[in-house]
Amino acid sequence: MDYGAASPVDPRVLEAMTPYFAGLFGNPSSIHSHAYEGQKALRRAREQVASLIGSQPQGIVFTSCATESNNLALMGGALRYRSRGSGIVISSIEHISTLNICKELSKQGFEISYVPVDTDGIINLESLRELVDDETALVSVMAANGEIGTIQPITEAAETAHQHGALFHTDATAAAGKIPLDVEGSGVDLMTLSSNDLYGPKGVGALYVRKGLRVKPTMIGGGQEAGMRSGSENIPGIVGMGRAAELAEAEVGREAGRLTWLRDRLIEGITESVPEAHLNGHPTRRLPNNANIRFSYIEGEALILSLDQLGVQVSSGSACVAKTLEPSHVLLAIGLKHEEAHGSLVFTLGRDNREEHVEYVIQQMPGVVQRLRAMSPLTPEELR
Amino acid sequence: MDYGAASPVDPRVLEAMTPYFAGLFGNPSSIHSHAYEGQKALRRAREQVASLIGSQPQGIVFTSCATESNNLALMGGALRYRSRGSGIVISSIEHISTLNICKELSKQGFEISYVPVDTDGIINLESLRELVDDETALVSVMAANGEIGTIQPITEAAETAHQHGALFHTDATAAAGKIPLDVEGSGVDLMTLSSNDLYGPKGVGALYVRKGLRVKPTMIGGGQEAGMRSGSENIPGIVGMGRAAELAEAEVGREAGRLTWLRDRLIEGITESVPEAHLNGHPTRRLPNNANIRFSYIEGEALILSLDQLGVQVSSGSACVAKTLEPSHVLLAIGLKHEEAHGSLVFTLGRDNREEHVEYVIQQMPGVVQRLRAMSPLTPEELR
Repeated sequence: MDYGAASPVDPRVLEAMTPYFAGLFGNPSSIHSHAYEGQKALRRAREQVASLIGSQPQGIVFTSCATESNNLALMGGALRYRSRGSGIVISSIEHISTLNICKELSKQGFEISYVPVDTDGIINLESLRELVDDETALVSVMAANGEIGTIQPITEAAETAHQHGALFHTDATAAAGKIPLDVEGSGVDLMTLSSNDLYGPKGVGALYVRKGLRVKPTMIGGGQEAGMRSGSENIPGIVGMGRAAELAEAEVGREAGRLTWLRDRLIEGITESVPEAHLNGHPTRRLPNNANIRFSYIEGEALILSLDQLGVQVSSGSACVAKTLEPSHVLLAIGLKHEEAHGSLVFTLGRDNREEHVEYVIQQMPGVVQRLRAMSPLTPEELR
Repeated sequence: MDYGAASPVDPRVLEAMTPYFAGLFGNPSSIHSHAYEGQKALRRAREQVASLIGSQPQGIVFTSCATESNNLALMGGALRYRSRGSGIVISSIEHISTLNICKELSKQGFEISYVPVDTDGIINLESLRELVDDETALVSVMAANGEIGTIQPITEAAETAHQHGALFHTDATAAAGKIPLDVEGSGVDLMTLSSNDLYGPKGVGALYVRKGLRVKPTMIGGGQEAGMRSGSENIPGIVGMGRAAELAEAEVGREAGRLTWLRDRLIEGITESVPEAHLNGHPTRRLPNNANIRFSYIEGEALILSLDQLGVQVSSGSACVAKTLEPSHVLLAIGLKHEEAHGSLVFTLGRDNREEHVEYVIQQMPGVVQRLRAMSPLTPEELR
């Protein structure tokens, strides 16, 4: 139940990739016939990824991961459109890569503003409207948060950005394949996508770039990907991401329904059977696969290790910052105290999770929590 | 015979990678047990790549390709050690990514100097000594050139850099797995490696960074790879590069001998049977798998297409710039005229090339060249 950290590659994706490792291994930039299959594969994958988000194929720039896409969007977008202003506005619950890129941009003279979120994790649109002005070059609000699952009003956020001539970027790493996305309908200019979050291979990502826009490359070289991302194309990986996007598009509706049902059963089961267990994030405007629950008086890490011994893998936040053992900035931003943030668990459900897995977790949880609470000096007597 | 553009993944490499796509898919940054296998795989791959170049495992930073490694080394090295000076010295025959990164660095205030090469493509060490001074932050000379195959005196170049306190970077993309490399013995501070050039998967590369040195990250995020390269690790790809490095180390000696024999037979066969066909690059200080031959009065592209129809794939230069149809900057740097550069072919031999393939090419070449020369208005009467 930690699909947010990593997902297995779908066997159909691996099957699509396999011919390109050794048989059809040509470099699409070559002049001879071995280039054709690579070119064709690249074109097809671009169409498949574009279709998932309602864009033109030409709008898809393949990268090596979501982090690179965020770098390309934010660093590349801000530097390219610096003349529009030096303001950048992001939500306070963006992914660590977005936060750290913006720190670097602030060293380079940009002024970063953070839109606050409410206690459910939804950005305050009024604050956004106050923060965005004609000096704003770029606004970035994630489509949905991978830790607390909250889905953001990106159409409204994009509109606010555009009223002031700013670019709008959304990190859709956690959202793509889980909820429908439409770059045209929502007015998104730049969108980050990750392959592995779609059950595609690791080491591949994409950035959607609206027609007519350009970003300054963060990786310089032979000018592949319309000059926006150099480096010989990772054809097997790109083919895998394309196929994964195609499958996600075909199956997102059914799978979202199934996951929503499991998610709600998990939330209900745990919060009813464990005293002082509460849902973090919005009850309904959340990703179908995400349940984030806080347990008073105990540490998330201890919970993770206890559940791991029972064969259940969960997370205490983003795997990208798991090792720091800092409380999640996302949970602090929605108003939790340090100890509440520390006692939170993230369940991200996925394709192989079944009802019996959810019931097993619900059944184990009260005992696990009680044992840990019994060891904690903070636990009040009535909960021991 | 275009292994320089792309290589098939070794079946043993693919076998090593396979378990990590779907079974052992955990994120090494997670806290639970699914992280262990990824951590173990990462450690092992680091050791395997390190062993190939005689470094400590901690010196290996995994990236998404050689182009990214060059960006990290040059951009990251120059920006990090800016206080040492604003001079950067590179050879005039570096890969397009190095040249373009340096163009960007020159916009950021660095002064780029180019070491000339002799007619065989070997850098002029005397010129290098004149160009490097106490204002030099970084020197970059490739270990061997992928187009003309010339092997550079990197130990001497590194020594010159170090005499003035400059970092020494070498792009070993074309050299690794073809000739022995030893970062300790040669005094290299930063070395670019590519997985696919070792018969590993595309979409993976590495940068060796000498102990005690740091580079400024070009990709910002969760701080993976000792803070020098963020983004969730592409475990299957990294495992593949590790295994490919291990195989390359075990087999480089035998394979280099075999390829050298084939290469020399190819060069001899073509230059003896085709009038006015001459070897580009050094006759012996060259990569065992590289033959670069110029044919007067005709265009490389026409040669490539003719050979392609006969089932032979070759290149006219680096695939990374193939589509520009510009004459190769490498061939111009060794003193060829535009028309000589245009009439040159690059053969890069590899694992599946056998003696009969070489003999077939030698046999076909005179006819192909003669047909094309007959169509060219530049061809003198006696060659028609």
